[in-house]
Amino acid sequence: MTSFVPQDATSLLPNIEAKARQEVNEPHSAVVRFGADQPLRLDAGVALPHLQIAYQTYGEPNAARSNAILVCHALTGDQHAANPNPVTGKPGWWETLVGPGKPIDTERFFVISSNVLGGCMGTTGPASLNPATGRAYGLDMPVVTIRDMVNAQAMLLDHLGIEKLLCVAGGSMGGMQVLQWAASYPERVFSALPIATGARHSAQNIAFHEVGRQAVMADPDWRGGRYLAEGVTPHRGLAVARMAAHITYLSDQALHRKFGRRLQDRANPTFGFDADFQVESYLRHQGESFVQRFDANSYLYVTRAMDYFDLAEDYGGVLANAFAGSKTRFCLVSFTSDWLFPTEDSRAIVHALNASGASVSFAEIVSDKGHDAFLLEEPELFAITRGFLDSAARAFGLPPGREG
Amino acid sequence: MTSFVPQDATSLLPNIEAKARQEVNEPHSAVVRFGADQPLRLDAGVALPHLQIAYQTYGEPNAARSNAILVCHALTGDQHAANPNPVTGKPGWWETLVGPGKPIDTERFFVISSNVLGGCMGTTGPASLNPATGRAYGLDMPVVTIRDMVNAQAMLLDHLGIEKLLCVAGGSMGGMQVLQWAASYPERVFSALPIATGARHSAQNIAFHEVGRQAVMADPDWRGGRYLAEGVTPHRGLAVARMAAHITYLSDQALHRKFGRRLQDRANPTFGFDADFQVESYLRHQGESFVQRFDANSYLYVTRAMDYFDLAEDYGGVLANAFAGSKTRFCLVSFTSDWLFPTEDSRAIVHALNASGASVSFAEIVSDKGHDAFLLEEPELFAITRGFLDSAARAFGLPPGREG
Repeated sequence: MTSFVPQDATSLLPNIEAKARQEVNEPHSAVVRFGADQPLRLDAGVALPHLQIAYQTYGEPNAARSNAILVCHALTGDQHAANPNPVTGKPGWWETLVGPGKPIDTERFFVISSNVLGGCMGTTGPASLNPATGRAYGLDMPVVTIRDMVNAQAMLLDHLGIEKLLCVAGGSMGGMQVLQWAASYPERVFSALPIATGARHSAQNIAFHEVGRQAVMADPDWRGGRYLAEGVTPHRGLAVARMAAHITYLSDQALHRKFGRRLQDRANPTFGFDADFQVESYLRHQGESFVQRFDANSYLYVTRAMDYFDLAEDYGGVLANAFAGSKTRFCLVSFTSDWLFPTEDSRAIVHALNASGASVSFAEIVSDKGHDAFLLEEPELFAITRGFLDSAARAFGLPPGREG
Repeated sequence: MTSFVPQDATSLLPNIEAKARQEVNEPHSAVVRFGADQPLRLDAGVALPHLQIAYQTYGEPNAARSNAILVCHALTGDQHAANPNPVTGKPGWWETLVGPGKPIDTERFFVISSNVLGGCMGTTGPASLNPATGRAYGLDMPVVTIRDMVNAQAMLLDHLGIEKLLCVAGGSMGGMQVLQWAASYPERVFSALPIATGARHSAQNIAFHEVGRQAVMADPDWRGGRYLAEGVTPHRGLAVARMAAHITYLSDQALHRKFGRRLQDRANPTFGFDADFQVESYLRHQGESFVQRFDANSYLYVTRAMDYFDLAEDYGGVLANAFAGSKTRFCLVSFTSDWLFPTEDSRAIVHALNASGASVSFAEIVSDKGHDAFLLEEPELFAITRGFLDSAARAFGLPPGREG
């Protein structure tokens, strides 16, 4: 893990950023700031000045800078892919895959992970200082898109001197970024690994996100998005949003295996509205712990970015056009029990890539873990990732890995 | 439709009951009240005195009172199965199936529909007057179960002089009541038609209900359940609960067919947090219209009753034991795109009925309408219902119907 001095003093999030810095002795992230002369032009039609990006790197770049892998996080992830999260103290969200000797091998590759635009862990988002007002943006932050997120990452890569990525990889919203990278910057992406994702958000997915946003905005402590200035947080609404979303990350089978209909106390069902079933107390815990680490407005912005994502729409309604002439090597992965991004979503991407003549492989992994499988112990995912990266690395001219 | 003078003056729900009476000139429901000497003994271990049941009847009982069909409503339904709802002005929830010449033919059968215990349309529920305090029960109402609901319905049947039902029919929570009727009162049920239901609520279903309850209880206007006394209503929380639940009633295909990713205004996406997609404004409308007709505490009680339902649990963990020696004729129906009560839930009931030697038929109807299909235009459901009832009626000694 490479550490840098943090410079993200513009974040106004009291709980999250401050807590992050209190609880670790070392700076919690690298940060790059772009001046007013380097604004990020957004899909919303405005320019965002003073962009700041918080990121982590793992491993070292080789002399040719040809061993860089960008990993893209999902809705509630952050830059801490492979180091303990400074806020929660828990392992990084992709420590299953990223690390020394792991499928995304940091002894071989230079891995970059940045907090998305609109996030709340150091990259510019609604809790950041609005230079025009001296207060937190709140809803004055323009709505951002997946493409805006990717364009911000491209600025980070320029800053780091990475011209071409060996691979971009990510699951769920991270996979959307991978697809957008391949479409927007085909010459900068040698290989792409989109996992458990889709080229657009379904009506059902939009509906679930809308419920979450309504839960946040229904909380009187949301205050029209100005809660930070008013010294409150819409933690109850955000917890409800997280609970609803969390159900969609798991399969019914996974919930059954974990909890079934087991009561907290079999001998004494409460016949009341306390958490009687284990699944209820689990969900409540998910909601409560989430509000400790996530900003409510960021939740609105990042879910909105996912809802707007429709890659085909930007290419005349034909997804294959997004990848026309692409030389990027693709590997897609889906999971049988993922009902948020079911296999048919991945298959639609595969068909488009086939139609555009791109190089693509596809694996549907049998798993009962639901959407979250991409974050969990899935040996087949590990083997596929290792094999795909090893093959891409050789083709890109890197020396063989330890097993290669 | 048989009308009666309403006597449900004990209901304290300001919006719902009062509105119901303002907007229709005729009494909106029949009501039966049981004195303190006829308490309902609840699964929670306490007795509920002064039980009141609001109900509708359609058609006329025959001389032998052998043509009675009880229809049981789902979570947010009420007694208005086949007449315009006095609160919403919309058609009754089962006018597709119940009426003159319809599959549940009110020219042939005497159809009874009552508001469930814990409901908010006239039957005793948390918004009713607690005789012990002179105020609304709120959370002082004991938690009720599906069995309690059925026991209350049995008291209503006694009052109406119906000894044995030709059939009990219902979908979703209504189907749970059908199963409970068959288990608790096999001698009173000649035939049973449980649709789109299960013998127990899955962990995922409990989880979705818990999100809804948390949304209600997170609303500061819930006031620990005492909102009626304090002159407020937790309408924002209840609307969020309804939105989340509503998604589970539809299939992804149905949402896609209805809305796809269509924007409200294609030319001008707001790039904001207004309802940009049609599915968002639809969901918001669902939430807003629901709070006009439903009591928040009732939502807690009735969802809880569904969560506790586990018919096998009451019979030594073996579902077949619930139907041991049963002479009831069963017909089960499921829908292919119902992911709330998938076909496997119905199949588990069929297996148990087979094991207990009961008479059972089963149809899985191909539909892309999701769980709500049981309330919608489904010709196959109509044909199955008509055929099953006609056969049951002949076997029960009724003269043939018009088509019979």
